[in-house]
Amino acid sequence: MTTPTETTRYERGLAKLAEVDGNAGQRVVDNLGDLGRYIVEFAFGDIYSRPGLSLREREIATVAILTALGGREPQLRVHMEAALNVGISLQELEEIILQTVPYAGFPTAINATNVLTRLKSEMPSQV
Amino acid sequence: MTTPTETTRYERGLAKLAEVDGNAGQRVVDNLGDLGRYIVEFAFGDIYSRPGLSLREREIATVAILTALGGREPQLRVHMEAALNVGISLQELEEIILQTVPYAGFPTAINATNVLTRLKSEMPSQV
Amino acid sequence: MTTPTETTRYERGLAKLAEVDGNAGQRVVDNLGDLGRYIVEFAFGDIYSRPGLSLREREIATVAILTALGGREPQLRVHMEAALNVGISLQELEEIILQTVPYAGFPTAINATNVLTRLKSEMPSQV
Amino acid sequence: MTTPTETTRYERGLAKLAEVDGNAGQRVVDNLGDLGRYIVEFAFGDIYSRPGLSLREREIATVAILTALGGREPQLRVHMEAALNVGISLQELEEIILQTVPYAGFPTAINATNVLTRLKSEMPSQV
Amino acid sequence: MTTPTETTRYERGLAKLAEVDGNAGQRVVDNLGDLGRYIVEFAFGDIYSRPGLSLREREIATVAILTALGGREPQLRVHMEAALNVGISLQELEEIILQTVPYAGFPTAINATNVLTRLKSEMPSQV
Amino acid sequence: MTTPTETTRYERGLAKLAEVDGNAGQRVVDNLGDLGRYIVEFAFGDIYSRPGLSLREREIATVAILTALGGREPQLRVHMEAALNVGISLQELEEIILQTVPYAGFPTAINATNVLTRLKSEMPSQV
Repeated sequence: MTTPTETTRYERGLAKLAEVDGNAGQRVVDNLGDLGRYIVEFAFGDIYSRPGLSLREREIATVAILTALGGREPQLRVHMEAALNVGISLQELEEIILQTVPYAGFPTAINATNVLTRLKSEMPSQV
Repeated sequence: MTTPTETTRYERGLAKLAEVDGNAGQRVVDNLGDLGRYIVEFAFGDIYSRPGLSLREREIATVAILTALGGREPQLRVHMEAALNVGISLQELEEIILQTVPYAGFPTAINATNVLTRLKSEMPSQV
Repeated sequence: MTTPTETTRYERGLAKLAEVDGNAGQRVVDNLGDLGRYIVEFAFGDIYSRPGLSLREREIATVAILTALGGREPQLRVHMEAALNVGISLQELEEIILQTVPYAGFPTAINATNVLTRLKSEMPSQV
Repeated sequence: MTTPTETTRYERGLAKLAEVDGNAGQRVVDNLGDLGRYIVEFAFGDIYSRPGLSLREREIATVAILTALGGREPQLRVHMEAALNVGISLQELEEIILQTVPYAGFPTAINATNVLTRLKSEMPSQV
Repeated sequence: MTTPTETTRYERGLAKLAEVDGNAGQRVVDNLGDLGRYIVEFAFGDIYSRPGLSLREREIATVAILTALGGREPQLRVHMEAALNVGISLQELEEIILQTVPYAGFPTAINATNVLTRLKSEMPSQV
Repeated sequence: MTTPTETTRYERGLAKLAEVDGNAGQRVVDNLGDLGRYIVEFAFGDIYSRPGLSLREREIATVAILTALGGREPQLRVHMEAALNVGISLQELEEIILQTVPYAGFPTAINATNVLTRLKSEMPSQV
C-alpha cells in the first residue's frame, strides 16, 4: 500500500472534485471548514479516486442514493450537475430517478424530478 | 404511446426478471401474491424494461440504493446476484458498496459487505 | 384475472386520481413526464383502485406514512387535501399525525402539523 | 383539561394495551423497564386512548408506518396481531402493505409480507 | 414510583423546557395544540427530567440524532440553540456534526452545518 | 495543518480504535478489506482522534444515532461495548436509548434495548 501524505490526498481530492463537479464542487466545500476538508480528502481523494468503477457509474450510484434517501435535495442538485459533467445526459438522469421508484417509492422521485426541472430551467440553452 | 395489454406487461416483466435475476428472481416473487405480480409488472415490466440505461447501470443504482437505505438485506442479496448476472463483478460490487459510504456512512456498508461475503461463500468456485 | 389495456389502466388511474385528489391530483402529475404516468397507472390505476380498503382508510395510511418518513412535505400537503376530499376531517388529520408520534417521534409530527396549519390558513372559510 | 394521576395514565394505558394487543401487548413491554412504562403511559395511555379515530384506523396507520420505515419487523409483528385483534382481517393487512408500495417501494413491503406469512403459518386454524 | 398529577408533569415539563431551550422552547410548542402538550409533558416532563445524563449530554445525543436522520432542520435549529443554552459551544456543535459523518454520511452533515452557519450569522455578538 | 502520512493516519486510527473499542474493534474491521481500512483511517484516525469532544461524548452521540436510524443493530452492539469501555455505564446506555424516543419513536428504542439486554446477559458478572 502506498502512503501518500495528507497533502497528497487533499490535492488528489481537489483534482478529482474539479473533474467530477467542475466549478460547482469547489462552491460546495467552501465555508464548510473541516467538514469540507474531509469531503475533499475522503469522498473525493479516497473514494472517487479509486479505480474499479467509472465516474459515470459512481454518479449513477450517487444520484440514485441521494434521490432514494430523501431530504438531501441540495446535494442532489450538486450531483446532478456532476452527472452532466461526467457524461450523463438529462434523459439518463430521468432514468436514474425512475429506477429509484420500485425501491423507494414516488415521493422522493417527485422531489428529485423537481430538482432536475429547476436545474434544466437554469441551464443556458438546453431543452 | 403503445398500449400493451396487462398480460403483455406481466409477460414482459417475467422475461426481464429472468434476464436480470436468473432463477433467483422467480423465487423472490413466488408466494407474494398480488405484491409479486406488481413487482413483475411494474418494477420489471415497466421500469427495468425501459431503454435509456443498461441493465448493468440499473443494477448499480439498485445495489447502491438498497445498501444506503439499510434494513433491506434480503433484497440486497437478490440484487447482488442479479448484478453478477448482468455482468457486474464481485470486485465491482465492493466498489458500489464503498461508493455509498460518503452518502450513507459505514454501518449500512458493513451490513452490505457481510451480505456480499456470505454470497461469496455460497458460490460454487469463485474467489 | 382481467387484462385491461394500458389505456384502461391510465384512464382508470386518472378517474381514481380525480376521485381522491380532486383538482390537486392532476396538478401533481402534470410536468412529471413518465413519472407522472406511472403515478397515474400504478399508484392510482392499480393500488388505489383495489377493493379491500376504503379510500378513507387508504388516505389514513398514506398521510401516516408520509408524516413518519419525513422530508416528503409537498406530497404530504397533496394527500392532506386528498384526505379532506374523501371525508377525513381536519381534526382527524391531527389525530393521524398524533398517531405517528410513538412510532416516528415528534419532529416529523411537528413538520406535518406545520403543513396542516398552512393548509388550514389557505382554505376559504374553515377555522 | 382533566388531570389524572400518573397511576391513572398507566392503568388506562394497560387497559388500552390489553384492548389493542390482547396478550401479546403485555409481553412486548415486559422486561423493558422504564421504556416499557412509557410505552404503556404515553403510546397507549395518551395516544391510543384518544377519541377521534377508531382503534381499527389507528392500527391501519401503525402497520403502514412500521412497514414503510423498515427495520422494525418485531414491532410490525406485534401490531399485525393487534390489527387482527381490533377487527382488521388478514386480507386487509395485505391491502395495507400494498398501500405502502407507492410511498416506500417494494423492499419494505416484501419484508412486511414475510412477517405476515410467518404470522399466518403460526395461527391455529386460519387460512 | 411517585405519581405526580398530569398538571405536575406539564409544569415540570414547562420548567425543563425553559431550562433547556430558553425562550425558543416556548415558541416551538405554541400553536401545536395537543402535540405541543405532549412535547412538554413527555419529551420534557418525562424524558429530559430524568436524572442519569446531564442536559449537556442529552443535547449532544439530540443534535446528533436530528443531524443524522435528516429532513428535521427546523428542530435541529431549535436544539442547536438549546445546546448553546446548556453550555455546548459553537465549536462543540461542529464536532457533534462531524461525529455523525461516519454513521450517516456527508449530506446530512452539510445540511446541519448550513443550519449552524445561519444560526451563527443571526447571533448578536459572535465568538 | 499538519500532514501526517497515510500510515500515520492508519496507525493513529488503530490506536484510537483499540482505545475506544478494546478487542471488539479489531474484530469489526477484520475481513472488511478496504472498507475496514477506511473505518480505521477516517472514522477513527480522523474523526474520533479529534479533540473537542471526549470519547464518552462521542459514544453518546454514536449510540444515539445508531439507535435512532434503526437497522444497524450489529454496529449498535459494537458501540455499546465501546461505550462501556470509555466509561459509560449500563444505566447510562439505557438513558441514551430513552433520549432517542422523542426524536425517533419507540420501535428503534425497543430494538436497541433488546441489543443491550443481550449484551448484559453475555457479560461475565454484571447485573
